[in-house]
Amino acid sequence: MTTSRLETFSDGVFAIAATLLILNVHADGRHLGQALAQAWPSYAAYAVSFVTIGIMWVNHHGVFAQIDKVDRTFLMVNVFFLMAVAFVPFPTVLVAQHIHDPGLRVAALAYGFTLTVTAVFYNLLWFYAARRRRLLRDDADPRVVSGITRSYLPGPWIYLAATLVALWRPTVSVVLFAAIAVFYMLESALFGRQEPVTTTRA
Amino acid sequence: MTTSRLETFSDGVFAIAATLLILNVHADGRHLGQALAQAWPSYAAYAVSFVTIGIMWVNHHGVFAQIDKVDRTFLMVNVFFLMAVAFVPFPTVLVAQHIHDPGLRVAALAYGFTLTVTAVFYNLLWFYAARRRRLLRDDADPRVVSGITRSYLPGPWIYLAATLVALWRPTVSVVLFAAIAVFYMLESALFGRQEPVTTTRA
Amino acid sequence: MTTSRLETFSDGVFAIAATLLILNVHADGRHLGQALAQAWPSYAAYAVSFVTIGIMWVNHHGVFAQIDKVDRTFLMVNVFFLMAVAFVPFPTVLVAQHIHDPGLRVAALAYGFTLTVTAVFYNLLWFYAARRRRLLRDDADPRVVSGITRSYLPGPWIYLAATLVALWRPTVSVVLFAAIAVFYMLESALFGRQEPVTTTRA
Amino acid sequence: MTTSRLETFSDGVFAIAATLLILNVHADGRHLGQALAQAWPSYAAYAVSFVTIGIMWVNHHGVFAQIDKVDRTFLMVNVFFLMAVAFVPFPTVLVAQHIHDPGLRVAALAYGFTLTVTAVFYNLLWFYAARRRRLLRDDADPRVVSGITRSYLPGPWIYLAATLVALWRPTVSVVLFAAIAVFYMLESALFGRQEPVTTTRA
Repeated sequence: MTTSRLETFSDGVFAIAATLLILNVHADGRHLGQALAQAWPSYAAYAVSFVTIGIMWVNHHGVFAQIDKVDRTFLMVNVFFLMAVAFVPFPTVLVAQHIHDPGLRVAALAYGFTLTVTAVFYNLLWFYAARRRRLLRDDADPRVVSGITRSYLPGPWIYLAATLVALWRPTVSVVLFAAIAVFYMLESALFGRQEPVTTTRA
Repeated sequence: MTTSRLETFSDGVFAIAATLLILNVHADGRHLGQALAQAWPSYAAYAVSFVTIGIMWVNHHGVFAQIDKVDRTFLMVNVFFLMAVAFVPFPTVLVAQHIHDPGLRVAALAYGFTLTVTAVFYNLLWFYAARRRRLLRDDADPRVVSGITRSYLPGPWIYLAATLVALWRPTVSVVLFAAIAVFYMLESALFGRQEPVTTTRA
Repeated sequence: MTTSRLETFSDGVFAIAATLLILNVHADGRHLGQALAQAWPSYAAYAVSFVTIGIMWVNHHGVFAQIDKVDRTFLMVNVFFLMAVAFVPFPTVLVAQHIHDPGLRVAALAYGFTLTVTAVFYNLLWFYAARRRRLLRDDADPRVVSGITRSYLPGPWIYLAATLVALWRPTVSVVLFAAIAVFYMLESALFGRQEPVTTTRA
Repeated sequence: MTTSRLETFSDGVFAIAATLLILNVHADGRHLGQALAQAWPSYAAYAVSFVTIGIMWVNHHGVFAQIDKVDRTFLMVNVFFLMAVAFVPFPTVLVAQHIHDPGLRVAALAYGFTLTVTAVFYNLLWFYAARRRRLLRDDADPRVVSGITRSYLPGPWIYLAATLVALWRPTVSVVLFAAIAVFYMLESALFGRQEPVTTTRA
């Protein structure tokens, strides 16, 4: 089986999950300027979730650069992973809606739990492919492979930690989610430059 | 005609139908924790339908691995098949909304009927392609082809049986739909491992 | 410029426009069985519009089998064509909502006008590509090319005629839209079989 | 890393953002004909935003014809660019809803600001790729490259200017947004013809 359809389907889910986020940005009220100003949590939630999904997509991209075959088990693990990604818009709305009320604790837990589960599935996806180089391309560089392993393993723990902070201070937890997105983004921007790879176009 | 656009369009419909499911997950109410706990049927419905659509996608993938040409009739059959797939979000909502009330009987019938029709179109799609090897690749392995035929034929009957159970016990019917999804998933996980296929990237 | 991105973008719009149709299928009410039975116009509208968009996709597929280059003008014409395709869900809802009331006349006019405009853009797309073989592949068969020309030209007139019938008898007009979809579908099923084309996979 | 997945993901976001616009076209009211006539601002907003997103897609297409490699920084810049594109449906609704009331000033500012930011990210995307020919194909024509640079640079300023007009005359600002879309469209139609490029199909 080719990896190309897996990538098309996955890119579709990433793109739709990210783009659907805009459906939850509203501004109603008699005075539009005021309504737009008060809707800032929904813009912030849109931005954080869009960038988070974007980072997941960038990493998915990185994983598939090392893979050149798939099997049905891997396809199913990917379906579960995408199920978690496509769930992100739901807790995103909750956080935006409850930023000013006591519901924020539960909303932040729901958001963080979703991202933690997503990171767990990400690790499952990668370890299934990389264990004994099951699905890796023959020329996959061992250093790149172990680099990916090292950078993915802490993901679920980082998200779990940020999630648990919500039990104590929900607002801090939400700020941490944004900070994690910014961190991963900068990490890409700073370390990602050194490896432009020539490629043929599909 | 190439199969590639058929796959792009189909992957698009699969990805959108699956991702749209999240639009039906809601949690409203004054006490968010309670509202989220009471919304469990919508999460369960999301998961079962996402995985069901995911399995259909995995199988569609398997079918197209055996095909290397298409004709207009096949394209139209595929459009009908996708029409059934894209319909799944509607009865999914019905089941989630009526899980606690007498409407569950009708909702389960609607859900099961949709999946039965989808399975029927799946068989039409496959038999149109496989009859006298009309659209199969020249090197399609006869054992793989007859294996697909054997595994698809019971699909409509299994879904029809689970659907008719709703006439007697709607809850049992809904549990069966989830069980069928789990069964197909495990079947992939257990039997799918043996056949990783090297492939060139598109 | 490659045709491949044009096809990916177009397939995306076709797939989304078709799949979004399900968002307009609802069944509310205290008695679910009754509500589902009364919602038949929304299922019918879903089916007719899904199949109509599906047929447009099949034809778009056929056009691009004859083309192997694009220019910016052609890309813009395709954007306009897709703008009409993506508009289809709106009048579809109108027809389903007003099937039992006097608003059907206006709804049918809106639906028919949208399909007429879509057919006009289809012809523009094809004639821009085919005039003096501007964008055709060098090996495009002249008989296939003139066959497409002959079969597309009546499209706008057929839809316009069915639309104008709504001024007199809206119900007849709606039945005609369904009949046109069935006709194009059968035409594909009956005449499309003879030309399976071997192809390499992308 | 290949450019192909970047294009698939981007095409997905463009296609979804454009197609979702239809969800904001409504016509409610007792008298459907009247309601449809009064809904003209939502059709106009749909058309202007669809064409604007379409032009962005055409240009994205043009950029990637010059690029044959990507790095992680570029992927992240593209995620930000797409975040702006996917935001367009939100201010589009605002403009359509407030076309007849004093909220139009704020709505036009929101719309224009979104397009200005999008144009800024477009320039970032292009300059990141083109600076010292970082990601360009080896055979990218220097004249085409500097032509793109020249035509992109004024984009943010043009949109910013049209946006600021809203402070003084919101209606003029909205007309300018439509005019800019028409201008870019005609520019493509008039100057785009001369360069049909033969290509192999993916």
